[in-house]
Amino acid sequence: MKRFNMVGKDVPRNDARAKATGTATYTDDMKLPGMLYGRILRSPVAHARIVRIDTSRAAALPGVKCVITAEDTPKIKYGNWRLFPETQDEYPLAVDKVRFIGDEVAAVAAMDKDTAEEALELIEVEYEELPAVFDVNEAAREGAPVLHAYCPNNISVNRKIQYGDVEKAFAEADYVREDTFNVHGVSPAYLEPCSALAQVDLDGRITLWTSTQVPYIVQCLLASTLGMRENDIRVIKPFVGGGFGGKMELRTWEFCAALMARKTGRPVKFTLSREEEFLTGRRRHPMQLHSKVAFKKDGTLVAKDLRIRLDGGAYNAMGPTATFLCGNFGAMLYRYPNYRFHGEHVYTNKPPASAMRGFGAPQSLYVSEIQMNMAAEDLGIDPVDIRLKNAQVSGDKIPDVATISSCGFVESIKKAAEMSDWKNKRKNLKPGQGIGIGCYSFISGGVFNWFNTQYPFSAAEVRVFSDGTAHLLTMASDIGQGSDTTLKQILAEELGLKMEDIRVTSADTSMTPQADLGAWGSRVTLMAGNAVIDAARKIKAELFGAVSARFNLNVIHEIVCRDGKVFPQGRPDRFMTFGDAVAMVQKARRGEPLVARGSYTPRGKGLVTPAFSFGAQIAQVEVDQETGLVEVKQMWTAHDIGTVVNPRAVEGQLAGSIQMGLGYALSEQFVMKDGKTLNPNFLDYKMPSALDMPPSALEHIETYEPEGPMGAKECGEGLASPSAPAISDAVYHAVGYRCKDLPITPEKILAAIGKK
Amino acid sequence: MKRFNMVGKDVPRNDARAKATGTATYTDDMKLPGMLYGRILRSPVAHARIVRIDTSRAAALPGVKCVITAEDTPKIKYGNWRLFPETQDEYPLAVDKVRFIGDEVAAVAAMDKDTAEEALELIEVEYEELPAVFDVNEAAREGAPVLHAYCPNNISVNRKIQYGDVEKAFAEADYVREDTFNVHGVSPAYLEPCSALAQVDLDGRITLWTSTQVPYIVQCLLASTLGMRENDIRVIKPFVGGGFGGKMELRTWEFCAALMARKTGRPVKFTLSREEEFLTGRRRHPMQLHSKVAFKKDGTLVAKDLRIRLDGGAYNAMGPTATFLCGNFGAMLYRYPNYRFHGEHVYTNKPPASAMRGFGAPQSLYVSEIQMNMAAEDLGIDPVDIRLKNAQVSGDKIPDVATISSCGFVESIKKAAEMSDWKNKRKNLKPGQGIGIGCYSFISGGVFNWFNTQYPFSAAEVRVFSDGTAHLLTMASDIGQGSDTTLKQILAEELGLKMEDIRVTSADTSMTPQADLGAWGSRVTLMAGNAVIDAARKIKAELFGAVSARFNLNVIHEIVCRDGKVFPQGRPDRFMTFGDAVAMVQKARRGEPLVARGSYTPRGKGLVTPAFSFGAQIAQVEVDQETGLVEVKQMWTAHDIGTVVNPRAVEGQLAGSIQMGLGYALSEQFVMKDGKTLNPNFLDYKMPSALDMPPSALEHIETYEPEGPMGAKECGEGLASPSAPAISDAVYHAVGYRCKDLPITPEKILAAIGKK
Repeated sequence: MKRFNMVGKDVPRNDARAKATGTATYTDDMKLPGMLYGRILRSPVAHARIVRIDTSRAAALPGVKCVITAEDTPKIKYGNWRLFPETQDEYPLAVDKVRFIGDEVAAVAAMDKDTAEEALELIEVEYEELPAVFDVNEAAREGAPVLHAYCPNNISVNRKIQYGDVEKAFAEADYVREDTFNVHGVSPAYLEPCSALAQVDLDGRITLWTSTQVPYIVQCLLASTLGMRENDIRVIKPFVGGGFGGKMELRTWEFCAALMARKTGRPVKFTLSREEEFLTGRRRHPMQLHSKVAFKKDGTLVAKDLRIRLDGGAYNAMGPTATFLCGNFGAMLYRYPNYRFHGEHVYTNKPPASAMRGFGAPQSLYVSEIQMNMAAEDLGIDPVDIRLKNAQVSGDKIPDVATISSCGFVESIKKAAEMSDWKNKRKNLKPGQGIGIGCYSFISGGVFNWFNTQYPFSAAEVRVFSDGTAHLLTMASDIGQGSDTTLKQILAEELGLKMEDIRVTSADTSMTPQADLGAWGSRVTLMAGNAVIDAARKIKAELFGAVSARFNLNVIHEIVCRDGKVFPQGRPDRFMTFGDAVAMVQKARRGEPLVARGSYTPRGKGLVTPAFSFGAQIAQVEVDQETGLVEVKQMWTAHDIGTVVNPRAVEGQLAGSIQMGLGYALSEQFVMKDGKTLNPNFLDYKMPSALDMPPSALEHIETYEPEGPMGAKECGEGLASPSAPAISDAVYHAVGYRCKDLPITPEKILAAIGKK
Repeated sequence: MKRFNMVGKDVPRNDARAKATGTATYTDDMKLPGMLYGRILRSPVAHARIVRIDTSRAAALPGVKCVITAEDTPKIKYGNWRLFPETQDEYPLAVDKVRFIGDEVAAVAAMDKDTAEEALELIEVEYEELPAVFDVNEAAREGAPVLHAYCPNNISVNRKIQYGDVEKAFAEADYVREDTFNVHGVSPAYLEPCSALAQVDLDGRITLWTSTQVPYIVQCLLASTLGMRENDIRVIKPFVGGGFGGKMELRTWEFCAALMARKTGRPVKFTLSREEEFLTGRRRHPMQLHSKVAFKKDGTLVAKDLRIRLDGGAYNAMGPTATFLCGNFGAMLYRYPNYRFHGEHVYTNKPPASAMRGFGAPQSLYVSEIQMNMAAEDLGIDPVDIRLKNAQVSGDKIPDVATISSCGFVESIKKAAEMSDWKNKRKNLKPGQGIGIGCYSFISGGVFNWFNTQYPFSAAEVRVFSDGTAHLLTMASDIGQGSDTTLKQILAEELGLKMEDIRVTSADTSMTPQADLGAWGSRVTLMAGNAVIDAARKIKAELFGAVSARFNLNVIHEIVCRDGKVFPQGRPDRFMTFGDAVAMVQKARRGEPLVARGSYTPRGKGLVTPAFSFGAQIAQVEVDQETGLVEVKQMWTAHDIGTVVNPRAVEGQLAGSIQMGLGYALSEQFVMKDGKTLNPNFLDYKMPSALDMPPSALEHIETYEPEGPMGAKECGEGLASPSAPAISDAVYHAVGYRCKDLPITPEKILAAIGKK
C-alpha cells in the first residue's frame, strides 16, 4: 500500500463551518435588486391536450411582471442524452399536451411570491382530457394511450445485453429459479428544494445561480433551449443542499428564470415548495424485474436472464442511463458466464423518474441479492458461502463492458461476516430476530458520453504562488458530498501542502476550466481527482526543475513535495520551501506565474466505468410480530473503495446510505392514485430520521485502484444498494417473509405471517 | 498605415448602458448580510504626539461592534515603492504621532453610519502638539520641525539628472532666462468617493471590494500590513467612478475594513464623505519650480537647469514617482542638449500629495511651456515657430532614459496652429482677447519597477469556444477610462470577432491572471493591450493550424481571422468559421479547451516608458478687464497617440482633460490655513462644470507606435497638461498678465493690469 500524508486523514469539510454557522448561501438565500419571484403553473390532469391558455387576467394582476407559456418560448426540446437526440423529449413548458399531474404549463414572475401564486390561479387553461396510463405493462400493451407521438408503443428505450449461451446453461443447470420483483419509486428528498435565480446583463448574457449537480449540462441545455450561445450563459452553483441524482438535468424553472429575466430585464428567482418536490420531483425508477437464475448443485452460478420494465413516467429524463445501468448491474458482483438482459423504458402518465443515488443498482441488486439468498436456502448453502463461491475478483472481465481492476469483494464479504458474527447469528438468533446480507458493486463515474461533451470529462487548473499557497479551479460540483474538500485533499497530498494553503473555486462555468460533467454516478473523486493530479504533476515537474537547478542534482534523483518543502527523496535537508521553489520557477520564466491545467477523460475502459467499488453489508433486525414493525438493530459494512481519501467523509456517506436504504426497504413510498401523489409532505412520506438510525460499524478493505487518484474509487453511492436487500433478508430470517414487492410494510409482514 | 477592422471605430463603451441605466454597482452600492459601517477618526491637529487614546466609551456605545487604533494593528509600514523600503513611511493608523489634519487615528465599525459617526466623538485622544511646517522651503530649512525621525531634513527623495555640460552651455548661450514658478495642489475630485468593503470567510481569507486603480497593489500591501499571505486576500474592483491617480495605493479604510472584518467576523464597509475626500484625499503636488533655460539667438534651445521642490505633505505616497517624472518631463518635448535636474520631495504637515493625472507633467510642462513662450517673445519668434525649431522627433534620444520611437509632435504643432488660425489670431485679436499655446508629451506606462512586482507588468488570458465566442480575463482595471472596452476591441480586432462575441472579466486578483500593475501612468492600453495580443496570437497560431490542415494549405500561406472566419489571406472563400476552427483544434487536442495566456513587460525601453505621446493645444480666451474673469472661447487640440483605438473614447478623454486643465488654470485650489483646508466641498472648491466647457476641436496625427498594440500609445493623461499653459499664454496674450503662480485668479489679473 502506498503511504500518504494528507490522503487517508480525517479532515474537516471545507463547508462545515459555513453550514454549521448558517452563513452558507444557497440559491434561495440570494436576493438581487429588483428581483422577481417566479411560480410555475402545473397540470392538474394526468394526460390532456391543451386547447387554450388565457394568461391575460394573470398578466393584469398588479405586481405581475411576466407570464409565459410555451408560445413565448422557442419550443426546442431538450434532454441529457444529446448523443441520441431522439431521446430528447421534453419542452421547458408543455407544448400542446400535458403528460402528468404536475407537468409545467406556464410560469409567472411577480414582485412577491404571494402575487405570483395568486396569478397562477388567474391563468385559464382549457384541457381536453385524454385516457391516461399508470402501469408499465398496461402502457406497453397494444392500444394503450400514447404519451409521445414519436413513440407509439410507449417504450422509449430498449437495451439488450447478451453473452454466453443462456438457454443452454438453463437447460443444463442443476437449479433454476425465476422470480418477479416490483420495486417502488422513492424521492431523493434532498433538504434543499430546487431553486434557480437568473440575471441578465446589459449585453444580454445570462448568469444563472442554480441548485444543480451539473452546471455545465445546465449551461449547454439552457443555451440550446433558448437558442443562445453556450458561452453567453454562465451557470454558478452556490451551496447545494443535496441532489442524489434529482438535480442533474436542465429543469423548467431554470429555463423560465432565464427567459423571464431576459423578458423583464430583472433578476427572476424560482424556488420549489416541498410539496412541488414531492408531487413532481425526479425520483428513483419504479421497476418490474423478472429474473431467472441458474446454479450448479454446488452453488456455482451459471446463468441469468433479467428482463425489466422501468416506469419512466412521462419523460425520459435520465431513464436511458438507468436502463443501461440496470443491465450492467445485473451482471455485476458475481460471475455470470451466461447473461441476458432486456430492459425497456416505458412511458406512463406519472412524474418522470430519473437518476437517484445508485442509478439502477438498488433495483437491480435487490433482485440479485434476494435471489442469491433464496437460491442459497434451496441449495442448502450459507448465503455468505454462496457469495464467496461466485464473487467477482480482480481481473474478471464482463464481456464487452469492462475489466475489473481492483476488487476487494471477497474480503468484504468475509469481513462483514466476521464483524457481525454471521455464522453464529444466522443459526442462533431468537424467533423474531434475523440477520441478513446484501452486497453491492458500483461505478466510479460513467464512460459512456451520452451528453456528447466536446470537453474532457473533468478538468482542473492549479495556480501556485510564491507565498506557499495554491489555487485550485475546477468545474466539479460540491453538492454536499464534500468534493471540494476531497479535491483539495488530493491536491494537498500531491503538492505537499496543508489544507489551509489551498483556495478552491469550483462550479462556475465562466471562471473554472472547461469542463466537468457534474456530480453524479460517483464520478467526482476519480475523474476530477485525476484531473487535479494531472495539473499538480505539471506543477511539480517545474518545481522539481527549480530544486534540481538550485542544488545541482543528478538527473536520476527523485524529488518530492512534502510539508511545504521540495527536496530530493531521502535528503530533506536539501530543501527549498514550496514558495521559494515557485518564486525560482517564476523568476526563470521572467515573471510568468506557474499555472497548469489538467484533465481526465476515461479511455479504453469499456462501456461503463473506469473502476468498480464493492462491498458487503449485514443487517440485524427485530420484527414485532404483533405490529409487523421492523427495528434494525445493527448494520455492519465492509467495503472496498480503493484508497480512503477522507475516512470521516466516508462515514458520512455510509450513514446517509443506510438512512436511504432503510427508507427504501421499510417506509418510503409515493402513495399514488390515478397519477396523483397523495402524500406530498414529510409527515406522510415516511423518511427515516436521525432517531431511526441503527448503530453501524464500518471496515475498509484496502485495495489500490490503478485508475483512481492515489488509488481511490467510488464511495457513497454504491452503499445505497445493499441495505434494502440486507434488511429484507434479515426480515425473512426473522419471520419468514420474503419481500419481492418493496417496501416491506408492517401490513405485508402481518399478512405473510398470517396475523392479518 | 495599417488598416484595421475594429480598431479605429467608434464603439460604445462596455459600461455605458450600465451607467446610463443606473444598474452599475459601485462599492458603496454593495450591502452584505450583517454588514457594519466604518468611520475613521482623524487628527484635528497638524502635528502632534499621541499621548493617550481611550476608546472605551466609543466601544460601549450600543451598536458599536469594533473600535481599533494602531495598538490593534501589526504596525507594519507600507508604501507603493516596495523596491526602496525606506520610502515606505505610512502606517494604516497613526503610531505615536499624527502629521496632518486628517491623519487617521482610529476606526469604528457599527451597525449603522450614524452610530459609527457618534462613536467617533466618544474616542478620547490626548495630543501633545508639536510645531508644524506647511511650506517646502521652511520645511527644508535647518531646524525645521521634523515629521519623520528617519528623515531629519524632511527631504525624503532626491532625484538628480544631468547630461551635457549645462554650465558651459549657459555661459555660451545668447539668451538665458531664469524664473520661479509656484503651482498649486488640486483635487482629483473623482465622482465616486473612496469606498471599501471587506468580508472574511470562515477560512480566514479576505475578499475586499474597493474603489481602486490597483487591485494587485492593494492585495499585496494589504497582505503585508496585516501579516497575511498575498493569496489569502482577494481584491475585486467593482465599477469605479474615476481615480485620476488618487486611488492607486493601499489606503487606511481598506486596511481597517479588512482588519475589522477579521475581528468581528462581519462584513465591514467604509465610504468616505466628500468632505473627507477634500480634506484628506490625495492631490496633485504643489511645487516650487526654478527653471533656467538658454537659447541661441535663432531660438535653438541649448540648456535647461530645473530645480524643484515638491510639497509632498505628510507622507511619500506616490511622491517619489512624481519627483522622478518631473525630471523626465522637464527634458521632454524639446531637444535639450544639456540638461540638469534636481528634484526634492519635501515633507510638510499637510495632506499627502500623490499621483494625479499627469503625474508631474502638468507642473513640469507648465514651466517649460510658459518659459518657451516668454523666450519666444524675447527672441522675437512666434511661439509656434520656436517650438517647431526645437521639437523632438522620432529617433531622438534622451540620454540614459529613452529613445523616442513614434513621434508626431511637429505635425501636431502645425495642425493645431492651422486649426486655430494661429498666425492670424496671434496678431489680430481685439484687446482682451488672446490665443495661447501649450504642448505636451506623456508616457505610455512606466518601465521602472518601483513596486518590485514579481509578475509580468500586464497579463491576459483568452479562452475561445466553438460557439464563436471568446472570454478575455485580465487584471487590468477599468476605472471609468474604458479599458475593458479598449481591450475587448483589441481582441476583437486580433481574432476577427465582433464586440458582442467577447466576454470580459477584469480586475479580480483571484480570478484574473497574475498580474497587472493597475490603471495609472496611461499604461493600460499599451501594456494590457500587448498582453491581450500576445495571448490572441497564440490562439491564432492554433486556429491557423486547423485551417491549414482542413484546406491542405501550403506552409507559406498567410492566414487571417476576420468577420468571424479564419481563412487564407486573399481566399476568403476557403474559410472555416471561427467556432468551427476552435472545434477542430479542440478535437485535435482530444477535447482540451483552447486557452492562451499572454503578458507584457517592457524590456530594454530605458527608464521611463516604452512609448511617448505628443500633442499641441491652442486656447482662445476673452478676459473681462473689469472683473478679471477669463472665458475660454475655444480649444484646438492636435495630438499623436499612435493608432486611435476608439475615437469616441479619445474624445471623452480630451473633454475630461480640458475640464481638468481649465480648473487647474483658472479656478480650483485648496484654500488652506495652518494645514487646514477651508473649502472642502464642491461649492467652494470651484471645479468647472459641464456648462463651463468651451467648444473644442480635435485632430489625430497619425503615427504607428512600434511598441504599442496595433500601433497605439498613451491617450488621455498627457492631455491633462497643455490646457493650463495654453490658457495662461492666452491670458497673457489678452491682457499681458504672465502667470507664474497658478491658478490664474481674477484677483491676480486685476492686480497685474492695475485694476485692483
